Amino acid sequence: MKKLLRVNTETNEINAEVLTDNYNMLSGRALISKVLTDEVKPTCDPLGKYNKLIIAPGFLAGTTVTCVNRISVGGKSPLTGGIKESNAGGNTAFKLGKLNIKAIILENVPENNKTNILYISKDKMDLVKCHEIKNIGIYKSAEILKGKYGEHVGLMLIGPVGEKMYVNSGISNTDNEGNPSRYSARGGLGAVMGSKGIKAIVIDDKGTSTPDILDKKSFINIKKNITNTVINNEAVANSYTKYGTSNLVDLINEMGALPTHNFSKGRFDLADSVNGKKLYDLIEERQGEGKHSHACMPGCLIRCSNIFADNDGNTIVSPLEYETIGLLGPNCGIGNLDTIGKLNYKCNDLGLDTIETGGAIGVLMEADVIGFGDEEGALNLLEEVKKDSYLGKIIASGAGNTAKVMGVRRVPVVKNQTMASYDPRAIKGLGVTYASSPMGADHTAGQTLRADVEHTKPDGQVEASKNAQISNALFDSIGTCFFVGGAIEGKIELLAGLIAAMYGEDITVNTLKDIAKKTLLREKEFNKKAGLTDAHDRLAEFFYEEENPDVSTVFDVKEEEIKRVHDF
Amino acid sequence: MKKLLRVNTETNEINAEVLTDNYNMLSGRALISKVLTDEVKPTCDPLGKYNKLIIAPGFLAGTTVTCVNRISVGGKSPLTGGIKESNAGGNTAFKLGKLNIKAIILENVPENNKTNILYISKDKMDLVKCHEIKNIGIYKSAEILKGKYGEHVGLMLIGPVGEKMYVNSGISNTDNEGNPSRYSARGGLGAVMGSKGIKAIVIDDKGTSTPDILDKKSFINIKKNITNTVINNEAVANSYTKYGTSNLVDLINEMGALPTHNFSKGRFDLADSVNGKKLYDLIEERQGEGKHSHACMPGCLIRCSNIFADNDGNTIVSPLEYETIGLLGPNCGIGNLDTIGKLNYKCNDLGLDTIETGGAIGVLMEADVIGFGDEEGALNLLEEVKKDSYLGKIIASGAGNTAKVMGVRRVPVVKNQTMASYDPRAIKGLGVTYASSPMGADHTAGQTLRADVEHTKPDGQVEASKNAQISNALFDSIGTCFFVGGAIEGKIELLAGLIAAMYGEDITVNTLKDIAKKTLLREKEFNKKAGLTDAHDRLAEFFYEEENPDVSTVFDVKEEEIKRVHDF
Repeated sequence: MKKLLRVNTETNEINAEVLTDNYNMLSGRALISKVLTDEVKPTCDPLGKYNKLIIAPGFLAGTTVTCVNRISVGGKSPLTGGIKESNAGGNTAFKLGKLNIKAIILENVPENNKTNILYISKDKMDLVKCHEIKNIGIYKSAEILKGKYGEHVGLMLIGPVGEKMYVNSGISNTDNEGNPSRYSARGGLGAVMGSKGIKAIVIDDKGTSTPDILDKKSFINIKKNITNTVINNEAVANSYTKYGTSNLVDLINEMGALPTHNFSKGRFDLADSVNGKKLYDLIEERQGEGKHSHACMPGCLIRCSNIFADNDGNTIVSPLEYETIGLLGPNCGIGNLDTIGKLNYKCNDLGLDTIETGGAIGVLMEADVIGFGDEEGALNLLEEVKKDSYLGKIIASGAGNTAKVMGVRRVPVVKNQTMASYDPRAIKGLGVTYASSPMGADHTAGQTLRADVEHTKPDGQVEASKNAQISNALFDSIGTCFFVGGAIEGKIELLAGLIAAMYGEDITVNTLKDIAKKTLLREKEFNKKAGLTDAHDRLAEFFYEEENPDVSTVFDVKEEEIKRVHDF
Repeated sequence: MKKLLRVNTETNEINAEVLTDNYNMLSGRALISKVLTDEVKPTCDPLGKYNKLIIAPGFLAGTTVTCVNRISVGGKSPLTGGIKESNAGGNTAFKLGKLNIKAIILENVPENNKTNILYISKDKMDLVKCHEIKNIGIYKSAEILKGKYGEHVGLMLIGPVGEKMYVNSGISNTDNEGNPSRYSARGGLGAVMGSKGIKAIVIDDKGTSTPDILDKKSFINIKKNITNTVINNEAVANSYTKYGTSNLVDLINEMGALPTHNFSKGRFDLADSVNGKKLYDLIEERQGEGKHSHACMPGCLIRCSNIFADNDGNTIVSPLEYETIGLLGPNCGIGNLDTIGKLNYKCNDLGLDTIETGGAIGVLMEADVIGFGDEEGALNLLEEVKKDSYLGKIIASGAGNTAKVMGVRRVPVVKNQTMASYDPRAIKGLGVTYASSPMGADHTAGQTLRADVEHTKPDGQVEASKNAQISNALFDSIGTCFFVGGAIEGKIELLAGLIAAMYGEDITVNTLKDIAKKTLLREKEFNKKAGLTDAHDRLAEFFYEEENPDVSTVFDVKEEEIKRVHDF
C-alpha cells in the first residue's frame, strides 16, 4: 500500500497517511500540482509556514525499468513566486518507491533555525538533529551521512546556500554510486527545504524489495519490449550514450542559439573547446575515474551521464551536462571544460543551481565586475559564495536579483528565473515555453528543439511549445526521463501499459495526456492566484529589442498568440 | 498658454506641445496617470526605452497661494513594478508654473550612459552634457549648477544611486532657499531619471511672472480667505508650525504604531529622545542655522519644515521629518536625533529614499550585520553606499531586495516597497492603504490616522482607507500639500474655486473628487495590466502572523473586504 508522509517541521511530528482518492492515481509533477492547489494558499510567503515542499517519485519508482526513477520536488518557488516542480535522476526515487512512499510533504517551519535530518526506513521515520553538517558542503555532508547511516542510503541534500534560504539553491540527490550529484536545481526549492530546517533526507531502503506489481507478467513483457527498443536504438547509442547532453553544443551553436556573453550572441568562438567531442576525447584520453557514459539512476540504459576527470584521472565533477556547459561556459565567455567542470563542482557543493549561477555570473560580467572569459575570476566568484560575502550573497540570490543590485538591465530571465542554454530568438518555440510555462524559463517544461518548425521564424512556435509542454508535463508526471520518449521511439503506450500493469488501473496514453493537461492547467491557476498573470508571460525586454546577431532576429512571436498556448 | 515638453533622451530633441483636450484639465498625479495609461505599455521594463518619466506641477503652480506648489513626478516604478507618483515641496513646481509648463515628459533612453542636464528657461530648452557632476552627491551638484546657472534657478536632481539605476532612489527638488532637500523619494523614480541619462533639470524662471489667471478678482478673494483661515488655525500653529511632522512621534508611539526594531514592536523606549519636543528644544537651544519652522515652498503659511543644526549651529540636515525619524530612528533602534539627522543628510546626498533605506538597514540589523541601535554602524552602512561596495549596492536596491539577498523573511514591504512609519497592525486603515493602494506601501496614498475608527480593530478600516485614498489622490492631483486640508478646515471648495478662477472652467469639489476617483481607477488598471493583481494587495506575511506586542494584535482586515476598497 502506497503511503504519503507528512512531516510537521514545527512540531517534529511525522504521519504516514493512506492515500486518498484525490491523490491516489497521480504521481510526480501532477501530484505536486494537486497538493499545492488543494493545500497551499497561492499568495503565501514561499519561505514561510504555509508553503509546503513536496517530494514525489513517479508511478513506476522502485522498479528497474529504464528511465522511470526520476524524483520530482515541488512547492511555491521563492525565485519565481509561482508553482515549481524540479526533477532529477539519481537513486532517491528508486528507494522511495521500494519503501512504498508516494510523496513526502514537508510542512510548517521550525521556530528557530534548525539543522535536522529526516530519516526514513522500512520501520522508522525520524527527525534527527545533525549539527555536524550545518553549513557544510554537499559532498562532505553526504560522506558524513553515509558514514552514519551506511553507504547504501539515498540522500536528498541542500547546501549552505539552501540552508541560508538564498533563492539560487537546489536539492541534490545521490546517484547510483551514492555521489550527491543529481540536482533538482531550479526554482529555489533548496531554500524552501532550508526554510523547513531540513538539511537532508536519508532514505534507507534496507530490507525492502521491488514494490507491488499487480500484473507482473504484463509488466515484465512490456519491460522487455522497452529494453529491446532502447538498446537497439542507434541514435541513442551514437549520441546520448557516447556524448551525453554535451552533444548539443555543436548543434545549438550551429543554430546560433548558444547563449554567449550574457545572451548577446548565439555562436561561441570557442565552441569546439566545450563540445561533446571535446568532452568525450578528454575523458577517454585522461582515463582514471573518468567515464564518458554513466547511468544516473537504477536501470537506465541510455546512460547519458558522465564522470569528468582531470589530467591525473581524478574526478572534477559528475556529470557535466549541456545546460551547465552553456551557462557557465559560453554565456560567461569561458571556453575551457576543466574550468567549467570546476565551476560545476563548486556550484554542486554549495547547493547552487548551475543555470541560475551562470546567469548571475554573466550579469556580473556585463557589469564589468570581471571580464567575459575570466576563468579565475569566475572561480573566485564562487569562493565569494562559499565565504558568504556580500558579493557571494548577491550571486546566491539569482541572476534577476543580481541585475537589480548591480543596476543591470540585460538579464536573461522570465519570472525572475534564468533561461536555459537556448537563445529564445534562435529557437523561438523555446522562447514561447520560457515566456508561458508556469515553471518560468525552464527548457525542460517544453523543449521544442526537435519540433518540425523553422526555429528562427515565429510561425508555428506556439503550437510547438504547446505540444512540448504537454509532452514534458506527461513525462514529469510519471517520473520518467524526458529522453525515454525518443529512446522508445515515441511509444508512450508502453509506459501507460507499465503503469496499468503495476496498479491494475485502466491507464492509456490518453489518460496520461489528460493528466498532463490538467497538471498544466492547475499550475496556471495556482500562478494566477499567486499573482502571475499574462503580464509575466514575457521575456526580458532586450530579447524583443536587440537582435541576436547570429540569426539576425529578435523574439517576435506575438503576445496574443502566446496567450493561447494553454488553450486545450 | 500652458505647454507640455517632450524630451527624447535618445535623439536629444525637445518639443513643446500645446496641450490636447485629453490632458488639458488634469494636473499632478491625475495627469501622470493619464499619460502613463495613454502612452506607456504597462508591461514595459521600467528602466527601458518604453517607460516615461513625467514631471507635473499642479493646477495652481506658480501662484503664491499657500501649499499649492507641490511637484508630482511619476512613471512605472522599478521598485514596485506598478505605476508610481511621488510628490514633494520645494520651488520647482512654482518655477515650472511661472514658465507655463504643465508637464515635462522624459522619453526613450540614450544609447550610452550619459550625464545630461535639461535646461529650461523662458526662451530656451536644451540638453547639455555635464560630466563634472557625474556621480557627485546632490548637495555638491546643486552648488555646481547654481554656480553655472545662477542662484535663482530651481533644480531637480538625482544622486549617484539614481545615476546607477539602483531602485532605492528618489529625485530631489530645491527648496525656497535653493537647498536640494525636498524629495520625490518613493518608488525608485530616481533610477528612471537615471535611465534617461538626465542627472538634473535646471528650471530658470528669470523674466517670468505669475501665470495667467482668468478671473483675478475671485482668485485674490479666495486666496485671502484661505490665508486668513490658515493663519487663524490654532492647531496648525501649535502643532505643525511649532513641531513640524515630528510632532507625530509621541502620538504614534502612544498608539503602539511606531515601527521599532524592524517592525517587531510599536513603542520605542527612547521615543522621548526623538520626538517633536526634543527636536524643537535642540533647535532652539543650539540656535545658529537651525530653525524649528521653515517654509518648504513659496507662499507656504504652515511652515512645517525645519532646519536641524548641530551643537555649533551648523546645519545637519533640512528638513528632518517624522517618516525619516521613524524609519532611520526607532525602526533601527536609534534614539539620537543627531545621528538620524546625519543619516538623513547622507541619504539625501546619495539620492536614497530615507524610508526605503531605513527599511533596508532594519533588515540588515535583523540579519545581524550590525545590531539594532548601532549608530556608527548605520552611518557606516551609508558610507558603503557611497563607496558603491556590494553591501552598499544591496542597500541601494531597497529593503525587499536586501531581504532576498540576505535570506531574511521579516521585511516590512508591500509590492516590494517599504512601509512608512506606521505599523499596520496598530493603524489598520493604513494597513489597508499599504495593501491596496496602487502606489504600494505609501502613507501619503491614504492616511487614515485622523479617521474616526478604532485603529487597532478591523472594523471600518476599508471605508476609512477608501476615503483617505480619494482625498489623497485629490490633493496629489491638484498639486497641493496634504496638510492644507486640515489647515483650511476641510473647505476644499476654496481650492476648487481657485482653479475655477484661474482657468475659467466650472470646477467644483465634485469635479475634483471625480478626478481623484478616476485617477485611482486608472492607476489600478495600469497595475493590473502590469501584472499587479489582488494577489499583490497584501502585506508581508509576518504582519498576519506575528502580533505587535504593544497592541496585541495582528493585521486582520479581511482580504475580501480589501478587494472592495476601490469600488466607487
